Amino acid sequence: MRTQIAIIGAGPAGMFLAHLLRQAGIDAVVIERRDRAYVEGRVRAGVLEPVTTDLMHRLGIGERLLREGLVHGGTNLALNGQVFRIDMAALTGGSTVTVYGQQEVMRDLFDAAEAVDLPIVWNAADVALSGLDGDRPVVTWRVDGVERTLECDFVVGCDGFHGVSRGAIPADVLRTYERVYPFGWLGILADVPPADHELIYANHERGFALASMRSPTRSRYYIQSAVDEDIADWSDTRFWDELCVRLGPETAAKVVRGPSFEKTIAPLRSFVCEPMRWGRLFLAGDAAHIVPPTGAKGMNLAVSDVTMLGEALVERYRDGSDAGIDGYSARALARVWKAERFSWWFTSVTHRFPTMDGFDRRIQMAELDYIRGSEAAQRTLAENYVGLPLGAA
Amino acid sequence: MRTQIAIIGAGPAGMFLAHLLRQAGIDAVVIERRDRAYVEGRVRAGVLEPVTTDLMHRLGIGERLLREGLVHGGTNLALNGQVFRIDMAALTGGSTVTVYGQQEVMRDLFDAAEAVDLPIVWNAADVALSGLDGDRPVVTWRVDGVERTLECDFVVGCDGFHGVSRGAIPADVLRTYERVYPFGWLGILADVPPADHELIYANHERGFALASMRSPTRSRYYIQSAVDEDIADWSDTRFWDELCVRLGPETAAKVVRGPSFEKTIAPLRSFVCEPMRWGRLFLAGDAAHIVPPTGAKGMNLAVSDVTMLGEALVERYRDGSDAGIDGYSARALARVWKAERFSWWFTSVTHRFPTMDGFDRRIQMAELDYIRGSEAAQRTLAENYVGLPLGAA
Repeated sequence: MRTQIAIIGAGPAGMFLAHLLRQAGIDAVVIERRDRAYVEGRVRAGVLEPVTTDLMHRLGIGERLLREGLVHGGTNLALNGQVFRIDMAALTGGSTVTVYGQQEVMRDLFDAAEAVDLPIVWNAADVALSGLDGDRPVVTWRVDGVERTLECDFVVGCDGFHGVSRGAIPADVLRTYERVYPFGWLGILADVPPADHELIYANHERGFALASMRSPTRSRYYIQSAVDEDIADWSDTRFWDELCVRLGPETAAKVVRGPSFEKTIAPLRSFVCEPMRWGRLFLAGDAAHIVPPTGAKGMNLAVSDVTMLGEALVERYRDGSDAGIDGYSARALARVWKAERFSWWFTSVTHRFPTMDGFDRRIQMAELDYIRGSEAAQRTLAENYVGLPLGAA
Repeated sequence: MRTQIAIIGAGPAGMFLAHLLRQAGIDAVVIERRDRAYVEGRVRAGVLEPVTTDLMHRLGIGERLLREGLVHGGTNLALNGQVFRIDMAALTGGSTVTVYGQQEVMRDLFDAAEAVDLPIVWNAADVALSGLDGDRPVVTWRVDGVERTLECDFVVGCDGFHGVSRGAIPADVLRTYERVYPFGWLGILADVPPADHELIYANHERGFALASMRSPTRSRYYIQSAVDEDIADWSDTRFWDELCVRLGPETAAKVVRGPSFEKTIAPLRSFVCEPMRWGRLFLAGDAAHIVPPTGAKGMNLAVSDVTMLGEALVERYRDGSDAGIDGYSARALARVWKAERFSWWFTSVTHRFPTMDGFDRRIQMAELDYIRGSEAAQRTLAENYVGLPLGAA
């Protein structure tokens, strides 16, 4: 078998790229370790930047998004229960974000892929990459015990933090940067109306809390917890009680309680690998970088990566120029690091750290107090929240 | 002896307050442990916010400042030698800072004090405060071995970080917050023209450097150093060489070398005490808070404290209202903490910390890269640099 671009992984990065390449008339095959139901069922992010919603519309898969997505022109911060709003739309010249779960995005991507017959290999075990430093890379895998081989011009690793692609870059070339946070997010989903029509990021003495939603009838709430917290210790009642304390009385009065149908603890991590290109391999999305969920940058970063990479590959096949693919790593990393900085900062300013002393806590409070009073500070938050420009190619 | 306000310490906080009270017809006596030559000779900050220059003009002591002060409408950052400018005036609707050494400010304050016969007690040893929780506080001290006593309505502690005033607040009331930084500033003064007409704050792999000045013919340069660095190890040549590496070739080409006539190492510290008022004692300036010198907030904070306290005391004596003095601590602290946050942040983003790993370093670089490209981020820096508003009384 042979194609132009082999894409490893059918998550958001891989599927958006596959659609982008199809639109440009470039052949691609997506190779995925799991099946569609598994990938589509993963509960992940739910806030889309314009970089993502614009791409969905450009690909012609934004019809349901338009109908069901919740457009947010603002977001809210709370300090010890006192809520204040950041008017993102006013501060950024009209930019907004859209609440629309990653599961919904995946469903739209897969439905559209079926409609245009995008080749996706499901249940591909033991994926391996070779020849990346030559002219003819090869991807191999097994399905039902039978070995398969795909020759291609380029491989794009979209197989996430635990995927095989990043490991194909020689250790003496690969540089990694990491921060593991000393807490996790305990999150629930419940079919109750959300406390507010926008998100509320709450900094409280007892720790961070986030009021979010998936739809007008489905709420998503999180509280900062220990990483090794036993979920069995968290009855719904205990969760709702703690959530309400941290959100403060004003918001708590609007919280509608109900049985949770999902309850999980997620660790928080910052991670970046450099470079994002080696020979004929490119990395995109979680394969190259992880952000803590504060600010919801994860999937949006994957989309900005493949938007840049798509442009670069089109330039290569249409114009015969390598400038785009040669510049991809530096261009993508410039935006990645700014999003990493924002996600790290937004986590730092809203969470309680076990090592925090009184000085650190006062600095946190002073920063939130400063943001509350400064239009310029609010604008920096807003422009990062809706997503910085892709940057020069 | 008796007066209305006893001011402990003849530094900037004490002398500005003494002039403010005199202008309002309130009697005050300043009690200072040293003599005028000592206080006036201390080399300190050199960048004045509008809060300070405006007050000098309001007090009628701004004539030499107007003539000799260097007005700066911008400041510069450098990342590994690449300089970019923050156009403060454009970003803040016209605000500027003025380079004019603390020594010059003190000379103007003392000259004006002599002209209007402000009572200053010099060489006051063993200053002690009592009766602060009653109606009639008493200050005692000795001059030439003879004990003196001053009765007053209020005492204002302007006697710096090492003064006695803060210690008069009972331990069970006083809360302190502190951060000691793991480095110092090795600074020189030299009679050579400065490298640039504005300041340059440089973040370099080898550590922070600052290009500053006192006048068109007097340069002030700093480099980040170990706290316990032996100054004898730093010949002028070694200092100039290291400075030029950190500022980068573009700026180094403009550095004019010459013999230093002052060379010192200063530690960096953040410190705040709360409350800033107890009974009939008020604290102002370094007696209540210390900032690292990055961003030059120290003396300006002392001035904003006494500006607020002056208003409060006038309100008390003219209108008979305690609202101002009762609100002083909270009002002053709100601005102090924002300045503490800025000074801590500006230090964090420009210095090399011994505990920094690759992730921290990349975050620093991403933040400076973000500032370079974002008008909103530049505006936050500019509005803090020229000084935030005093805030509601």
